[in-house]
Order: sequence, then C-alpha cells, then structure tokens
Amino acid sequence: MQKEEKEITKWRKYPNAKPENCAMMIIDMQNDFINENGRYADWGIDISHMVRTVEPIKKVINFCREMNIPIIAARFIIRDLVEYGIGWKIRPLIVQGGLREGSWGVEIIDELEISSQKGDWIIDRPRFSCFFSTRLELLLRGLNRKTLIVTGVLTNQCVESTIRDAQMRDFEVLELLDCVGTMGGTMMDPITREKAKIAAEELHCASLRAVTFGLGDVIPSQELIGELGKISK
Amino acid sequence: MQKEEKEITKWRKYPNAKPENCAMMIIDMQNDFINENGRYADWGIDISHMVRTVEPIKKVINFCREMNIPIIAARFIIRDLVEYGIGWKIRPLIVQGGLREGSWGVEIIDELEISSQKGDWIIDRPRFSCFFSTRLELLLRGLNRKTLIVTGVLTNQCVESTIRDAQMRDFEVLELLDCVGTMGGTMMDPITREKAKIAAEELHCASLRAVTFGLGDVIPSQELIGELGKISK
Amino acid sequence: MQKEEKEITKWRKYPNAKPENCAMMIIDMQNDFINENGRYADWGIDISHMVRTVEPIKKVINFCREMNIPIIAARFIIRDLVEYGIGWKIRPLIVQGGLREGSWGVEIIDELEISSQKGDWIIDRPRFSCFFSTRLELLLRGLNRKTLIVTGVLTNQCVESTIRDAQMRDFEVLELLDCVGTMGGTMMDPITREKAKIAAEELHCASLRAVTFGLGDVIPSQELIGELGKISK
Amino acid sequence: MQKEEKEITKWRKYPNAKPENCAMMIIDMQNDFINENGRYADWGIDISHMVRTVEPIKKVINFCREMNIPIIAARFIIRDLVEYGIGWKIRPLIVQGGLREGSWGVEIIDELEISSQKGDWIIDRPRFSCFFSTRLELLLRGLNRKTLIVTGVLTNQCVESTIRDAQMRDFEVLELLDCVGTMGGTMMDPITREKAKIAAEELHCASLRAVTFGLGDVIPSQELIGELGKISK
Repeated sequence: MQKEEKEITKWRKYPNAKPENCAMMIIDMQNDFINENGRYADWGIDISHMVRTVEPIKKVINFCREMNIPIIAARFIIRDLVEYGIGWKIRPLIVQGGLREGSWGVEIIDELEISSQKGDWIIDRPRFSCFFSTRLELLLRGLNRKTLIVTGVLTNQCVESTIRDAQMRDFEVLELLDCVGTMGGTMMDPITREKAKIAAEELHCASLRAVTFGLGDVIPSQELIGELGKISK
Repeated sequence: MQKEEKEITKWRKYPNAKPENCAMMIIDMQNDFINENGRYADWGIDISHMVRTVEPIKKVINFCREMNIPIIAARFIIRDLVEYGIGWKIRPLIVQGGLREGSWGVEIIDELEISSQKGDWIIDRPRFSCFFSTRLELLLRGLNRKTLIVTGVLTNQCVESTIRDAQMRDFEVLELLDCVGTMGGTMMDPITREKAKIAAEELHCASLRAVTFGLGDVIPSQELIGELGKISK
Repeated sequence: MQKEEKEITKWRKYPNAKPENCAMMIIDMQNDFINENGRYADWGIDISHMVRTVEPIKKVINFCREMNIPIIAARFIIRDLVEYGIGWKIRPLIVQGGLREGSWGVEIIDELEISSQKGDWIIDRPRFSCFFSTRLELLLRGLNRKTLIVTGVLTNQCVESTIRDAQMRDFEVLELLDCVGTMGGTMMDPITREKAKIAAEELHCASLRAVTFGLGDVIPSQELIGELGKISK
Repeated sequence: MQKEEKEITKWRKYPNAKPENCAMMIIDMQNDFINENGRYADWGIDISHMVRTVEPIKKVINFCREMNIPIIAARFIIRDLVEYGIGWKIRPLIVQGGLREGSWGVEIIDELEISSQKGDWIIDRPRFSCFFSTRLELLLRGLNRKTLIVTGVLTNQCVESTIRDAQMRDFEVLELLDCVGTMGGTMMDPITREKAKIAAEELHCASLRAVTFGLGDVIPSQELIGELGKISK
C-alpha cells in the first residue's frame, strides 16, 4: 500500500503579517549593480533583470513610508581585496575594481531616495548575507520587528543568503518576487559539464522556489501592499 | 557597439586543493532522513534521491580515513519546538515528531560507521547551517583546515546553507554532486502560483548551479578522489 | 565652578524582574572544578571559594523549579587541544588533562541534580562565554526569556564572559554573589611586576564590581528569591 | 601532605610576538570620552585617567606606522536609543545624548591623526566588544594578523570586552597598560552595599589583573616597542 504524500511545506507560511512587525530590506541597489554606468553594466553584463525591480521597489518604499515601516538598505562594500576574502577566487572581475569604499559605484541609486536623514538605516558589509558581521540583527531587535519584507539584488546571491540567515534567526521572510532580480551569464553547468548560457530569469526562479520550499514566503509586491494595507485599516 | 561579455565566474575556483588542508563534512545523514524506517519515509516522502548518496559517501569516507582528512558529521537535533524557532511554520510535519534529541531517528545511519572513538567529530544543531550557533568554525580553525569537502542532505537546504556560511568565512567549498541529495514534493510554484510536483533532481540541480554561480566548486566524488590522491603521491 | 558629578550607573538596573521572564544559568559546576577529586583540586588549587556556592545554588535551583523558571547548565568541554585554541598558552595545566569529553570530570556535580529528563537544558562549549559558538541565544529566545539569573564558576572568567555577552545581546543579568565563585593563586601582578598571591575573594569582588559598573545587577540569592517570590503571589 | 601549588597562568603568554603578525587596536578614543569638551567631561566625569593614554598611544601609532603594522580604530556609535538596546538601563546619561551618529563627539580625537586615507581601518559598532556584530574578525583574518596590540578606553568596559572576545577567537592579546584608561565614580559597592567612590586606577588595575589571570599579556608600551623593534632588525 502506498503511503499518502504529506504536504512538504505551507504555501503561505506567514499569512498574517502585520505592518507594525515589519521592516523593509533593500539589498545592494547600488550603482555598480543597477546603473548603466556602473561596473556590472561596464563589464558587459546584462543588468535588465535587476533594473526591472526599481519601479516596484519605489512603490514599496512609498508604501512603507506611509505605514511607518522602517527601511533598511544594505550595501556591499569593500575597501580592497583584504576585505574580500576568497571572493576574488569566485568573482575575479572584482579584482579590477567595483564596489569600492568611497566610490560612486557603492552608492545606492538615486531613484530610491534612501536617506538616513529620513530615518532610513544603512548597513554596509563585505559578504553576501546582510546579517553576517553586521549590526542588522541588533537593529531589528531594537526596532522590535520580526517580519522582513525583502527586496534587492541578486536574487540567488546576497538576497538568498540574507533570507537564509533571517530564517535561522527566526525572522519571518516575505520576499517580493518583482522586487528582486539577478543576472545570467555564460558558465559551466555542473551537471552536463558544458558551457551554457543561463538566463537571469532561470536563476531567479530557482532561488524563489528554494525560498518557497523552506525559507519563507514569495509573493508579488502588490499582493503584500494589499494585505498589509487592509490590516492597518 | 556591443560589449564583450566577461566570464561571470570560474568553473573551478579551487583547482589545487591539498589533502592536508581538507576536512570532510557529512551533513544530516541521519535515520530520520535516510532510513526507510525514519520519519521522512514514514511521512510518505520519496527518499531515494537522498539514499543514492550513501554508497559514494562511504567511498569518500574511506578515502579520507586513508588520507588523514578529518571527518565532521553534523546532525540536526531539536529537543522540542522551543528549539525549532519558526521552523514549525515552515515544516509543519516536524511538529508531530522527528529529529528529536535522544531518539533513534537523530542517529547517523549505521552504514557510515561514524564514530568519535575513531576521531570523527560530531556537531549538533537546531538550524540549517552547520556553522550557525555551533563550534564548527572554531574546530576547523583548530584543525587548520580551510577546504571543505561537502556531502549530505538536503542539497538545497542544510547543505546549501552550510556552503553559503562556509564561503562567507573564507572556507573553500568542494561539493560532491553524487554525495548530496534532496527530496521533491508537491508545492505551490511561486511564479505560476499553481500546485506543482517538483522532482528532487530539479531542486538538486538548481542548488548545484547556485553553488557554481558564486559559492564554490561542484564536482563528482571520483574526480576529487583522483585529484587529491595524485597530489599526495 | 566645579561641575556636579552625575551618577555613573544605577545600583539596580533591573529592579522589576518577573519570574516568567527569567532563566537560570548554572555555569561550569563540573567535577573538575568543584569536586575534591577533580582536576583543579588535584593540581593543588584551593577550590573552597567555588565549593561555597553549592548550597546556595541548590536553593536557587529548588526555587526555580517551583516557579517554572527554566534551568540551563553549561559545561566547559574539550576533546583535545585542537578544540582548546590558544587556551593552552593561557592555562598550561590543561595540556595534561582535565575538562575532557567523556570523562567524569566534565560531568556536573551530582549534588545539583541537573537532568535533561527533568527538562533542564545542557550547553557544552570549548570557550569562556556560554553564548560563544553555542545555541544559547536561540534557546533563550525560543524560551522567551530575557532575564538571566547567573550562577557558577569562575566569577572572573566564564561567568563574567557570559555576562558580558548577555548584556551585548540585551539580556538582563542578575548575578547572584553567593552563587558565583573563583580561585586565587600566585601570579605576576601586572602593575608591580612582582609575584603576588591573590586571594579568590579579591578577584571575585573585582569582577562583581565590574558587573555593577556596567553589565548588570549583583545581588544575594536570598534577595532575588524574596523579590521574585513576592511578585508571583 | 599538602600538595604543591601549580602555576595558574604564565606571566608572558605570548613572549615571541612578531611585527608581521600584529595589528594595533585603538578603542573608542573619541571626543565624547577623551576631549574636555566631550560629553563625559561635560557630565562632570573626571576623564584624566583616559586622557593620560593619549601621548603613549601616539608613540605606539608612530611605531606601528614605521613597522607596517595595520591600525584599526574602533568607535562606539549609536543613532538613537533603538540601537542602544538595554544600554540605557545601564548608562542612563546616554539617554540625553552622547556618542551619536554624525556628531563631533563620535569622531576620533584629532591628536591621533587616524585616517582611512593613510590606510587605517575604522570599525563602528553599538556594543562594548569591537568583535560583536562587526567585520573585525574578517578584517583581521584578511590581514593575516593574529596578535592584537590593544589600546584605548575604558579599560574595564569596551577594552576588556574586546579582549575577551579576541581570546575566544584565538587572537593573542598584548594589552598596553599605559595606553588603556578608564573613569572612576560614585557607585554602590556590590559587597558592602554602601555608596563608595571608586578610583579609576582601582577599576583599571582590577581589569588588568583579570587579563593577566586568563586572557592575555599586559605590558608597558615601551617594553612592547623594544621587543618588536629588536625582532625586526
């Protein structure tokens, strides 16, 4: 007799998020990643999948400002290779430059109008996860926020690493699928062991699925805005 | 004029690993995950993709014992829901039982013959990453090992979270693709928002690709054995 | 005109602790430290200042069991020098033995009747602070306890390091002065640069003062029992 | 028969430090602590014991620049009470102001001429230990430095907490006794439970002794300069 298969995860793990418990994370929306004059575009990388997040992120920012949901923007910054650890073996392009302390490239793109004068928080770090060797966890506990609205780039790198770290610390993650983006590119496929051009969207969807599988909720930004807006009335 | 696309990552990031720098990680090869009488099988989950790792892992263990490469086995253990954090919202099946302190289910499967008497190290923890709230990093630095041979389950959960944490701490990761496995299942697809049956192999490959993209090397166990064996002669 | 001196700290920082927010920490009350047949006594160290804590700790344990305050006992355990880091340069006696995994010496002294069967939690680690590379913080958050009743040995070493780490993580510390103890001994005085015999009580008081100065509250156990008992009625 | 007492610790734990392994830490030499127009002086606190460190620290900085020993200066910074955690229950004066992000008070005193343009590193954080929720450990490993020359204020607070965290991570600590300082003040004595005026020097010496007892080496700056200078020739 075959056993009945159980549900391996819930579709919505945190269906009842409340605005007063939320903080918004904006990860690495920096010129070097998102601006057409930034390093990534300059290296010939197609940044369009990341650029597509700008408009929806702006709407979420406006909504969070209205709802008094704190906004925390993270930046990936290194002074030089000393701080980059084994990163240069993984992303050799960075050896030449990019994401450097004090440069225009590390600034958050102007369109988002992030500013500590407005009360936004800025977290800088030299590794993927925004929790790793930063004060982010302290800040979230100080703000008394347990639900993270997650946006930014790259879906499968810094965003997913931050989500994994959030889940381990018992923060509830709401990842906004239209507000996270990545890049594709030519790389060896570990299974076929042939060079393959992998689309940004493919890597993006794979990461969103990994989140749904066991890390948090993945929903469109309009849906979240609708849900939180309704609760607050 | 179109810019030439740069290589986004190296295929082999750490081609020159040496046995004297390596430690082998065996993640969550516990009865509840891998044994046909364990909880996961009991819940009706198809564990075959995880079970297929047992034989290749045994070979890697034997090789590591010959080469004096230390073996570190990690176990996922909780006493009760107090230690499981928000995990129960993500994996509701665990509320009923499984992975409980003191039970047969948390023991590492007998076939692997892991034993602290032989000098193997055991790391227990209640979260995905083997680095998170454990002494693993201290142990690796004490052993003076910077290269991690990674095996175990689930490819896309505890294995990938451990790999992400290893990379942030500047440990070089060699993930053995035939020695890591996962499970599939029916879940909502975050993009289509329809229920879909996703195969273990699909989740597995997506995770291996994420590792290749920016976290470490992914190779077959025989290849690693060949490379390390050659160096040591 | 001379400025009036401001109060540099409050005497009681947390005067309103409630039983339902408390957890009791018992640090390193292990045979090797406290038992007359343990390693420390065997090395000729006067352990009487540590032994004097046993009776008051037992009373606090009984009180905590009555009040359903969870009890967390920590043990200092190393398998061998690999796990001891630079500790052997600091405490060379440990090179010979003591505090070793699996030995009688690492067990918590029988008098305290600590047992996971009763619901007590055990935290093992190879460094001074009970928070460092352990799941203690996760556990306290899972138990929803923010106030730590701190007991054990050595006042100025593992106890104080744990208190410092607790304060940084925003846990409120109530150190029970009759339930913590240390050892004295002959050592070079860093100021006079002459060998001096320093009494346990002197090191103990210096540490309690450092806690009062900026880390937490220091009170006798009877006072705490009185305060918490009154609140609960 | 009385047992012979064993040496409880070595006087010099790390007698063979080498310049190429060293980094210099300068902790919290900020206007609010050290400058006569800073907050601490303004509150009527006698800052002379801290001010006395300025000249010897300058000499050590000059020596380190000559020897290419990297200099890491840490600052205690909070934006507002959200980031201060339970600190306000411990140091109520800070509620009114001091150590605030963007203020003159958080700047490192001009006399030390610390500057990232010169290659110095700056670490900001809102808790005592310079390791806690910062990238300091990553930086030290990236710089390949395992020996920390420790200077700054307050001996018994941020300095000692940083030293405790350094030791747990296996960094060798050389604390320079003339380059660390603290403040005294009127507080309740935890033993006598009477108000007492405790001198800065008393708290300072107690902390240095705690370091000698089990955390690291405590020596005068001239001695360290002599030792390291000799080795490098």
